[in-house]
Amino acid sequence: MARASALVDGRAADRVAVTDRGLHYGDGLFETIAVRGRCPCLWQRHLERLALGCERLGIPVPAPDTLVAEARQLLDGADAADGVLKLILTRGSGARGYAAPPAPRPTRILSFHPGLPEPRRGTEAIIRLTLCETPLGDNARLAGIKHLNRLEQVLARAEWSDPRILDGIMSDGRGHPVCGTMSNIYVLDAAGIATPPLTRCGVAGTVRDVVRDCATALGIPFQERQLDLSDLHAADGLMMSNALLGLMPVGWLCEHRYSAGTVPAALIDRVRATALEPETLA
Amino acid sequence: MARASALVDGRAADRVAVTDRGLHYGDGLFETIAVRGRCPCLWQRHLERLALGCERLGIPVPAPDTLVAEARQLLDGADAADGVLKLILTRGSGARGYAAPPAPRPTRILSFHPGLPEPRRGTEAIIRLTLCETPLGDNARLAGIKHLNRLEQVLARAEWSDPRILDGIMSDGRGHPVCGTMSNIYVLDAAGIATPPLTRCGVAGTVRDVVRDCATALGIPFQERQLDLSDLHAADGLMMSNALLGLMPVGWLCEHRYSAGTVPAALIDRVRATALEPETLA
Repeated sequence: MARASALVDGRAADRVAVTDRGLHYGDGLFETIAVRGRCPCLWQRHLERLALGCERLGIPVPAPDTLVAEARQLLDGADAADGVLKLILTRGSGARGYAAPPAPRPTRILSFHPGLPEPRRGTEAIIRLTLCETPLGDNARLAGIKHLNRLEQVLARAEWSDPRILDGIMSDGRGHPVCGTMSNIYVLDAAGIATPPLTRCGVAGTVRDVVRDCATALGIPFQERQLDLSDLHAADGLMMSNALLGLMPVGWLCEHRYSAGTVPAALIDRVRATALEPETLA
Repeated sequence: MARASALVDGRAADRVAVTDRGLHYGDGLFETIAVRGRCPCLWQRHLERLALGCERLGIPVPAPDTLVAEARQLLDGADAADGVLKLILTRGSGARGYAAPPAPRPTRILSFHPGLPEPRRGTEAIIRLTLCETPLGDNARLAGIKHLNRLEQVLARAEWSDPRILDGIMSDGRGHPVCGTMSNIYVLDAAGIATPPLTRCGVAGTVRDVVRDCATALGIPFQERQLDLSDLHAADGLMMSNALLGLMPVGWLCEHRYSAGTVPAALIDRVRATALEPETLA
């Protein structure tokens, strides 16, 4: 018998209530967590971002002990040691209508997906990115957090089918590049590293903070700065990060080729050592 | 035994697959349909808007015959003759990640909720609206359709708890009022009726087209026009519409009181006669 690959509120299940507000309104949050050797990477940072999202949306924060126990249960019973743990937290079920229940009982959905991209060594820039036309709408109340309203990303992802392209960069309504559909982006030039601010749209990936911390520790200037498309093309190097890949040099943005070796190997290695090393669940 | 109040893909069910993209990304659409005497109101218009949303999102349009049969099954077996039929259509289940499955199998979820506000006669303006601070983000690709990404409405609805307030008006990022969380809005002045365009954000309610058609038939000028908050306060009258209430005069916008009797009774009656008369399912 196949092992359960999902837990709903702590029980093996493959279905959720038809009344769940996650389904009706995207009223919830999620985290995508790398798992190595049955242990999650950046677990604490994921929990912190989840808690920030809960605060913004007014959803009660689940007890960390509950999430630890459920993650442990799921990963110990999984068919593979490496993969992706997806955690969805919704406001739970409610009556019809946007008004939230006065005492919401959030739904926790943990699922495990075997298989994880092998972390690459070195700084060879082989990743291809494209530019998406689907814009990101501005809403400061939703910016930065990883909520379940992801139609913009779904439409952007549908813009390319070339399997060599790993991600697409999305811009805000004024044409400023903000982030990939599933990644944060960084330009590298003589001034150091710059990444777009995420105060109006975009998702603040857990690895983004790791990149900032590691760059600072290495003495590489790191700043949030509004970018133009021309900044991407003029940069010495372009990097992208997410929770499954760590930090990666970008080789191509559409037809634009970045020179190999412009990205500091020490930074790449240091970010990977933090972002892709499993933590003991606690 | 209680009658099933929901059908998932034509079968009585109270759960949906944990892998459904409606839950993961809000990747789908919905319709909220008034039901009277076990028959839906504005059924054809709801199907047309659903089809428009499917076209925009690239979701296969369900066969109308299938939806008719499922609505018939649900409404014939319902505990009440009047209520609300909610139809959700998602892109169906898929693997982890934003990329849509190449051959999506959409999920149809029909649920019935007994109870419907009694349509009011006359033009007494007793409805109270408030102004919401949560803005609507611009995205032309998502504007107008009734998709499942509704966190903006959820946050806006959480801004008031006074049960006398029926709805809150949301504005775009530049402060132009666009629509209510669950309604469209109309100002009435010497020039006729004006309602905000919905090309960048907002939902085009099924009754909005009915209001336009009825106004035109009655010789009342009707236009889409960008409004300012000052236009709402300066107007002779303010109206709101949705699929459950038809067209209603607004009595108060926050502390601002609109004079009674400024809204044409013939228009109110005509819209209600169209929007709230049940259609035979076909």
